[in-house]
Amino acid sequence: MIKFYENAPYVPMQTGYDVENILYKGKSRFQDIMVVENSDFGKMLLLDNVVQLTEADEFFYHEMLAHVVLHAQPNPKKVVVIGGGDGGVVREALKHKSIEKVWFIEIDEEVIKVSEKFFPQVASGNKDPRVEIKCMDGAEFVKMLPAKDIDAIIVDSTDIIGFARTLYTKEFFAAVRNCLKDTGMFVTHSESIIFHRDTVVKVQNILSRAFPVVDLYTAAIATYPGYWWSFSIGSVSLDPREVRQPFSIETKLYDDEMHKNAFLPRKFYKKLVEGKLGWGIRGIFE
Amino acid sequence: MIKFYENAPYVPMQTGYDVENILYKGKSRFQDIMVVENSDFGKMLLLDNVVQLTEADEFFYHEMLAHVVLHAQPNPKKVVVIGGGDGGVVREALKHKSIEKVWFIEIDEEVIKVSEKFFPQVASGNKDPRVEIKCMDGAEFVKMLPAKDIDAIIVDSTDIIGFARTLYTKEFFAAVRNCLKDTGMFVTHSESIIFHRDTVVKVQNILSRAFPVVDLYTAAIATYPGYWWSFSIGSVSLDPREVRQPFSIETKLYDDEMHKNAFLPRKFYKKLVEGKLGWGIRGIFE
Repeated sequence: MIKFYENAPYVPMQTGYDVENILYKGKSRFQDIMVVENSDFGKMLLLDNVVQLTEADEFFYHEMLAHVVLHAQPNPKKVVVIGGGDGGVVREALKHKSIEKVWFIEIDEEVIKVSEKFFPQVASGNKDPRVEIKCMDGAEFVKMLPAKDIDAIIVDSTDIIGFARTLYTKEFFAAVRNCLKDTGMFVTHSESIIFHRDTVVKVQNILSRAFPVVDLYTAAIATYPGYWWSFSIGSVSLDPREVRQPFSIETKLYDDEMHKNAFLPRKFYKKLVEGKLGWGIRGIFE
Repeated sequence: MIKFYENAPYVPMQTGYDVENILYKGKSRFQDIMVVENSDFGKMLLLDNVVQLTEADEFFYHEMLAHVVLHAQPNPKKVVVIGGGDGGVVREALKHKSIEKVWFIEIDEEVIKVSEKFFPQVASGNKDPRVEIKCMDGAEFVKMLPAKDIDAIIVDSTDIIGFARTLYTKEFFAAVRNCLKDTGMFVTHSESIIFHRDTVVKVQNILSRAFPVVDLYTAAIATYPGYWWSFSIGSVSLDPREVRQPFSIETKLYDDEMHKNAFLPRKFYKKLVEGKLGWGIRGIFE
């Protein structure tokens, strides 16, 4: 048994896991990739020593990231997933019968390969005929898309440091806005409200320069330090708090009621974005 | 700088904190008591090496534990707080103008003394004339109360092991039910939905033998492993999801909107208590 301590950036505590086996250890052009095994969480994927997913709780993050924007639209057909090389968000998006096409844009091909090998139940959508995988920078891909063509763009990036930062700029958000349909929505994780309050606010502010409707919802994620994890939405016109299609897919956590509860209460949200919250620990990007 | 690793029971990960100073280290009849200092969380209270509160985020737990049952009643006057020797729940209860009396029942007098010294802003209600402190077993105290006299009983215990277990039995819940008014409510923390699913269900089941109305709400607590923390309510008649008085107190997190959002969505709650959730890690008490 090895004790593994996560090396999460800008987090005021350290998380340790008992590792029973190291199943894979490699290095791509972009990052260190490791797959380990823990008796409670099952297999775990680590990038640069930060936990990206565990078999036991990956659905928390993947369901909550994918389904909110997809249920807030009446009939989403075309989706772009940026990052999320494990395939979890793609798997969730494919559950929607209306979806005709998913572009799966991951900068690091190695993450896709390792996930297909060690997490086949997460990467289970990769071979679906509706999926087109491209290994490239998501910010570059979005620039090439025609205007008003996409229903949802979903970013599942690593922490907002290093190469992930191009996915949190006003230029990127403007390009995303440009290729979304009038009913389209964008969503990205935006770190923890408790541990990275200023970052959450900053992402909301940058988003609001590109989108008329900006909102925030949360989920408690046990294996991401900060736990009270936030997801930032930019919408071209529709209110993302509303569910616009019957709930008919199979999920473990997300449903149409969870959709509504996940959004920050209006008064709390207002305090947060106006910088009047008065608490919360440091930010992750300045 | 010392690295301190928390020794939380039945938790599948370990949490480490950088400790800058150990301000207090003692041993009471019941437990080890320690106060340490961390640059992000401020002062931290540890009992048997488990984090009980930190200056930075104590309000999450204390507000969410105290205010839900107090706002779900039109006019609460008499409150019993069991445990919570730090004083945080008592401080929150006293914010309600309608409150005339708070019995503060803590088994371990040392926790009260240490908290008054090191966390005066948490223990700030202890000297309020409405507060009566008794250092005794809460289960014994409740047995002595007259029938139908109390508006709210709030349990803020340590983890459901050792001496805290008397506060999670059907005998205790029956005694609590007996001394509550017809509009009265009981609330206790019931561990983490993610890490202690079976425990949450068990507490709900035992509660439902004593109370006609049983419910569950949650909050994400950064410093309690399991993070998605649960609070179990037993109510004599009223639906605790409803807010029955204007929101007029000062809080950092809780408000009347947060009240409603905190409750588990009905369908999810039903799956959980019927044992159909299909996920979640091990329980803490059998």
